Amino acid sequence: MLTRITIIIALAFAWLPGLHATELLVEKQRFTTHDFVTVSGETIPEVTIGWEAYGQLNDAKDNVILITHFFSGNSHAAGKYSPTDPQPGYWDAIIGPGKAIDTNQYYVISSDTLVNAFPHLPHVVTTGPASINPTTGKPYGLDFPVVTIRDFVNVQHALLESLGVSKLHAVIGASMGSLQAIEWGTAYPDMVERVVSVIGAAAMDAWTITALEHWARPIKLDPDWNQGNYYDGNAPIAGLASTLTMITQQAMHPISFNQASPTQETLPAAGLESILNDLPATAFWFNAAAKNAVLADANHILYLVRANQLFIAGHQENLAAGLANLNAKTLFLPAKHDLLLQPYLAQQAVATLKELGKEPQYDEIEGVFGHLDGLYSIQTKAALIAEFLAQ
Amino acid sequence: MLTRITIIIALAFAWLPGLHATELLVEKQRFTTHDFVTVSGETIPEVTIGWEAYGQLNDAKDNVILITHFFSGNSHAAGKYSPTDPQPGYWDAIIGPGKAIDTNQYYVISSDTLVNAFPHLPHVVTTGPASINPTTGKPYGLDFPVVTIRDFVNVQHALLESLGVSKLHAVIGASMGSLQAIEWGTAYPDMVERVVSVIGAAAMDAWTITALEHWARPIKLDPDWNQGNYYDGNAPIAGLASTLTMITQQAMHPISFNQASPTQETLPAAGLESILNDLPATAFWFNAAAKNAVLADANHILYLVRANQLFIAGHQENLAAGLANLNAKTLFLPAKHDLLLQPYLAQQAVATLKELGKEPQYDEIEGVFGHLDGLYSIQTKAALIAEFLAQ
Repeated sequence: MLTRITIIIALAFAWLPGLHATELLVEKQRFTTHDFVTVSGETIPEVTIGWEAYGQLNDAKDNVILITHFFSGNSHAAGKYSPTDPQPGYWDAIIGPGKAIDTNQYYVISSDTLVNAFPHLPHVVTTGPASINPTTGKPYGLDFPVVTIRDFVNVQHALLESLGVSKLHAVIGASMGSLQAIEWGTAYPDMVERVVSVIGAAAMDAWTITALEHWARPIKLDPDWNQGNYYDGNAPIAGLASTLTMITQQAMHPISFNQASPTQETLPAAGLESILNDLPATAFWFNAAAKNAVLADANHILYLVRANQLFIAGHQENLAAGLANLNAKTLFLPAKHDLLLQPYLAQQAVATLKELGKEPQYDEIEGVFGHLDGLYSIQTKAALIAEFLAQ
Repeated sequence: MLTRITIIIALAFAWLPGLHATELLVEKQRFTTHDFVTVSGETIPEVTIGWEAYGQLNDAKDNVILITHFFSGNSHAAGKYSPTDPQPGYWDAIIGPGKAIDTNQYYVISSDTLVNAFPHLPHVVTTGPASINPTTGKPYGLDFPVVTIRDFVNVQHALLESLGVSKLHAVIGASMGSLQAIEWGTAYPDMVERVVSVIGAAAMDAWTITALEHWARPIKLDPDWNQGNYYDGNAPIAGLASTLTMITQQAMHPISFNQASPTQETLPAAGLESILNDLPATAFWFNAAAKNAVLADANHILYLVRANQLFIAGHQENLAAGLANLNAKTLFLPAKHDLLLQPYLAQQAVATLKELGKEPQYDEIEGVFGHLDGLYSIQTKAALIAEFLAQ
């Protein structure tokens, strides 16, 4: 059983308890591009994101695998920053020498996104509403343009161009990372040979768009949010803590969530005294989230919510038209007990691709972590991923 | 397919589109009890609730079935208030002459609870934080004592006492109504012969307690809530609308929710322009909820959340000790695709009862409405319920 504190750390910091000792030592690098034009038609004067790489780029520069990260994650997908780091990157179980994504063979690049949820975490490098707007010398706030998953992809494309990479052996991502992986395949179809979508979707449905809106509402309702203008005052920590707790819960499953929570075997006196008093489970989760909230940025989370809400692969008149562009081989790996992005979403993508005459592969990840089985139980699909990459 | 507007009306008003023409005409009655002592040890000088009855009480007064309602519902379980009413009560498919709960045979009493979520709906009669505190002449607000599911049961017990009823052929409820039904069986074991728990649970787990807290947070974060003191000013409608949308969504399932929602087949321009702009699905659900929010009371919802969070049948040191008191025959009917109170909760109750040497019955309701299959698909279990009542 994962201990409570491990789960919280893992969720907040995107750290996964390593199942194997890792030898991989990594460093965060920075990439800057100028006058970046967004899908929404705005220009961001300077965009800087972080990235990491594992393995060696070959002379032909054709052994590259790109890893794209999930909503609350960042580019630290594998390895450790120093030998004494308590935890390696989130997919260390499948990325490394001799592992499913074999760094003896592939040059694995992992990239931060725009508007990362936790810009105040060490090692996160991102550009978003909390960044300084060079024209005003102050944080952008809501002047930052709305960005889409395609914008995340386009920044990554600029990064790869700067490295002279024009072919991707695969793009692989979990959850929001899966959205980026599929979008890569539709935006740059001649560049992407394989796409692995873990716990993902090819388009948002009304259910998920509305669920994501519930992540935004506690922030928007918190008076400290102040329409996004809080950088000179108090950040909306109470709203943020509610949002982070909701994300944590929806990314889990009752089995693992209850195992990690304090139990309530009888009537709790404090809860009976006033509706304002916490209960053991709510105190545990919301207090933990409040501690992590200082590392997050409320506007960044609102922008991430919107990027996900707008997602439809390919940006055409409908999903089928968007997916028609995709040339890559595809592998879909939803988590069987996922309550956040349920397997029907991957199944819909698979059905649409098949109707288009393509041959998507599909398998389900078993486990008790729900959506998080895409991280915690990914090693159960290591052989399948290795096989797919070798095809 | 249920139309969008029908679903919204059904959710907000607890009205169910009748599958059969009904002849049952009903009227809301009022019951008042004085100096009601709560489980939390407080005294409420005057408690008034509404109730309805269908059928005829026999001379022995032993043909009574009590119906207890769900979170957003009220005592209008069957029939119409007038022949021109657009919708009958929520379980009209199974309550009425010749139906599963046969009003030719049983005297069916349906009771409002304390702190009803929609006190401003016509026909809802309840007592809670929005009621006038006779000692101050003003609404109680947060001075109203915390109440529990047992308190709901105790008010109903006082109602039955006033009618001279000392035996219940059955108590039947859906969702929060199921909690009351089970609590009836443990609180008054010699009075209750049968319990039917539809889409319910015998105790709250950390998962559900935390999920319920997410219903409370948008209200608490809305500055108009003002620690419960809003009766002289603006009610926290924005927070309430978020809460009601969340309840609606979690009570449904992606299949039915997506059918009822506007689709988003391509990038919506407004959503791309500003994160403050709604998307088609969010506008649809949140605007509908905002219209219904004026009929609800924010404090009442917070008190209902707390009553549910505190629930553990029997109020003993643990659930097994509480259920040991239960003498009634039991039938558990979770909905197979319920995402709010998933079938594992009913299964846990069944397992605990079996360990205690009892013989609970169990079956699952099929459907595409998720939790709401406990209302919309209840007729698929009509024969089973009739058979259970005849045992």
